[in-house]
Amino acid sequence: MTRLVTLLTDFGDQDGFVGAMKGVMLTRDSSIRFADIAHGVAQGDVQKGSRVWARAAFCFPPGTVHLGVIDPGVGSSRAGIAACIGGHLFVAPDNGLITGVASCGHPIEDVRMLDPNQLGCRALSSTFHGRDLFAPAAAQLSAGLGLSKVGPRLEKWCRLTIPAPRFDAGSWHGEVIEIDQFGNLLTNLAANIFEGPVQVELGALRLRGPKASYSQVGPSEPVLVIGSLGTLEVAIRNGDAAREYGIQVGDTIHCRSTGNQQHAE
Amino acid sequence: MTRLVTLLTDFGDQDGFVGAMKGVMLTRDSSIRFADIAHGVAQGDVQKGSRVWARAAFCFPPGTVHLGVIDPGVGSSRAGIAACIGGHLFVAPDNGLITGVASCGHPIEDVRMLDPNQLGCRALSSTFHGRDLFAPAAAQLSAGLGLSKVGPRLEKWCRLTIPAPRFDAGSWHGEVIEIDQFGNLLTNLAANIFEGPVQVELGALRLRGPKASYSQVGPSEPVLVIGSLGTLEVAIRNGDAAREYGIQVGDTIHCRSTGNQQHAE
Amino acid sequence: MTRLVTLLTDFGDQDGFVGAMKGVMLTRDSSIRFADIAHGVAQGDVQKGSRVWARAAFCFPPGTVHLGVIDPGVGSSRAGIAACIGGHLFVAPDNGLITGVASCGHPIEDVRMLDPNQLGCRALSSTFHGRDLFAPAAAQLSAGLGLSKVGPRLEKWCRLTIPAPRFDAGSWHGEVIEIDQFGNLLTNLAANIFEGPVQVELGALRLRGPKASYSQVGPSEPVLVIGSLGTLEVAIRNGDAAREYGIQVGDTIHCRSTGNQQHAE
Repeated sequence: MTRLVTLLTDFGDQDGFVGAMKGVMLTRDSSIRFADIAHGVAQGDVQKGSRVWARAAFCFPPGTVHLGVIDPGVGSSRAGIAACIGGHLFVAPDNGLITGVASCGHPIEDVRMLDPNQLGCRALSSTFHGRDLFAPAAAQLSAGLGLSKVGPRLEKWCRLTIPAPRFDAGSWHGEVIEIDQFGNLLTNLAANIFEGPVQVELGALRLRGPKASYSQVGPSEPVLVIGSLGTLEVAIRNGDAAREYGIQVGDTIHCRSTGNQQHAE
Repeated sequence: MTRLVTLLTDFGDQDGFVGAMKGVMLTRDSSIRFADIAHGVAQGDVQKGSRVWARAAFCFPPGTVHLGVIDPGVGSSRAGIAACIGGHLFVAPDNGLITGVASCGHPIEDVRMLDPNQLGCRALSSTFHGRDLFAPAAAQLSAGLGLSKVGPRLEKWCRLTIPAPRFDAGSWHGEVIEIDQFGNLLTNLAANIFEGPVQVELGALRLRGPKASYSQVGPSEPVLVIGSLGTLEVAIRNGDAAREYGIQVGDTIHCRSTGNQQHAE
Repeated sequence: MTRLVTLLTDFGDQDGFVGAMKGVMLTRDSSIRFADIAHGVAQGDVQKGSRVWARAAFCFPPGTVHLGVIDPGVGSSRAGIAACIGGHLFVAPDNGLITGVASCGHPIEDVRMLDPNQLGCRALSSTFHGRDLFAPAAAQLSAGLGLSKVGPRLEKWCRLTIPAPRFDAGSWHGEVIEIDQFGNLLTNLAANIFEGPVQVELGALRLRGPKASYSQVGPSEPVLVIGSLGTLEVAIRNGDAAREYGIQVGDTIHCRSTGNQQHAE
């Protein structure tokens, strides 16, 4: 039994909301250990949270309970969800937050709708289901409650649209799907669809690569690398590419192989 | 024995001050487990910290030691304090930080002034009593030291003024007492003093409610809800009400029941 | 066996990078306990990180593993390092981050270069050695792996230049070496090289002191105190000295004793 609970929220670090959730869980099971994944996700940015979760959750051991509360629809009729994916348990509002972890190739073993009554959660507040519903659910799952006991099976649950790259006229056309706090531009172009060197166009940028590391270009120069998830990433060495080039999530990136051309040069 | 210590500070996350306190405590008792309540409270904002503590501390199990260091008077003659309230232990500077937890309706069982000599804390620095006094006190209490051993009983200790709403001319007049990081406007008007629907005036805003959730209005529209502490709260759905309407802590909110009028309509 | 791992990074709290590292470590050893030192260090600011580490690491019990990842050269040929200093273990890129902890007067017992093969770390990404190399190394050291097993001994490793004050014409000339999040100006002038009162010049400021605490001057007034590391510090009571006076890291501070002059007055 792991009794390990991770937390992902957009609650920041000034109001004590994360602390309240941890207290609720420890009150139910004082042996729980916590690991914070992120609490500084932009407010209500379910898309970003979904990606952060996909990146971090499966680094933890199977059996870990992952509690995610980015919940702009709190108090509405959106359901709560608990899912077993690849041997990990996820608890979240049913607003698409689990899209990323459900799209990593791990088997989706079971998805349930949280039933507050079955979980012993009465009198939910209008504004803080993290404390009143999701934390109690996570604590009970961590303590060994079977997933089938949290509520009925959900056949349909909310999935965010994950933009897919398309191939046209000799190039792949993808987009910037995330900007990390370093200002690095993460794209949806998997590096392994290319063989050898490529050239990308992103806004006014024209870059060849991928380079083996940020430091293969001079300080403050742009660089194309393969990011830690195996996708193409545009960065500025020791700088903020998003700010410097005015790039935003959703901007298009074009990429074509230059392998043959280089051989011909 | 819980050996659970929570931490609340205005130390942020760049200087390692929280880490230093955790290290000091673990050096005295390596079995302590920590839960962070908040470290991003605005610098020196004892009033805000007091409210955050009131909201989060009692979510934890009784016996938890809560360490709070928002201490603009560090090094002055202000005393340190340790208190047992509702079965929880609180350690803080005597600057009003415990006002909130002392005002939640839990019995105030004992309040003590920290005596550095009794706690074995010699040579306090001028600027970091969190490390030199409060963390050692918390660690010793967590390890089972009786509250009577930390120093003499304090009959008078610092209390912040908590603004109370007043009733006049058919309306309740309260104020905005906190703005959370979502820009939601938390007031001192307990929802249970009203029966049925109300109308509030806050700056230029005129709102009817309370609604059952933020999502009962359209995106970017203002909404009156009952917050997670049972008080009236003004928010913008998926927006920042404080910034949008230029509302600050201390601004007046007027509220009157509209229940009867609605029946008459 | 402590199995206590602290973390120091510039990863912030929005991307889940710290969570990924914790997951990697818990997957190797689920009994590890974590304490965060700081994750909000300015991006790539190895100098600042080095100071934060020096301030916080030795507050923890000996045997603690301290994992530091501020790594602007990730993916380049810079090595990884593991060191035993004063009975504490440090894991970091070899970019000077350990300068501070190596300069605290504790014995430098052993310094090793991380060998990814010996640590079982194959296929490092280009951009996230924290997850792929440093976290696995820290987890194995925490679990008891001998330092000699992580890689060959390093005789030369990267040290940052720590500016030393100099004495000239009756005054000490030092500099501001760090600004904390309160805007306090930390200098490299050890308070114990002076006897009695001093006068300092820093930009347009002329201050006498040191005072026993911030609160020995009026609100918003500047004050000279002895900081928590025993060095002279310039602050504004309840204010931000760096912003108010436009002081930056590297600015010169002049300091001379006024003890005798005061006797003569």
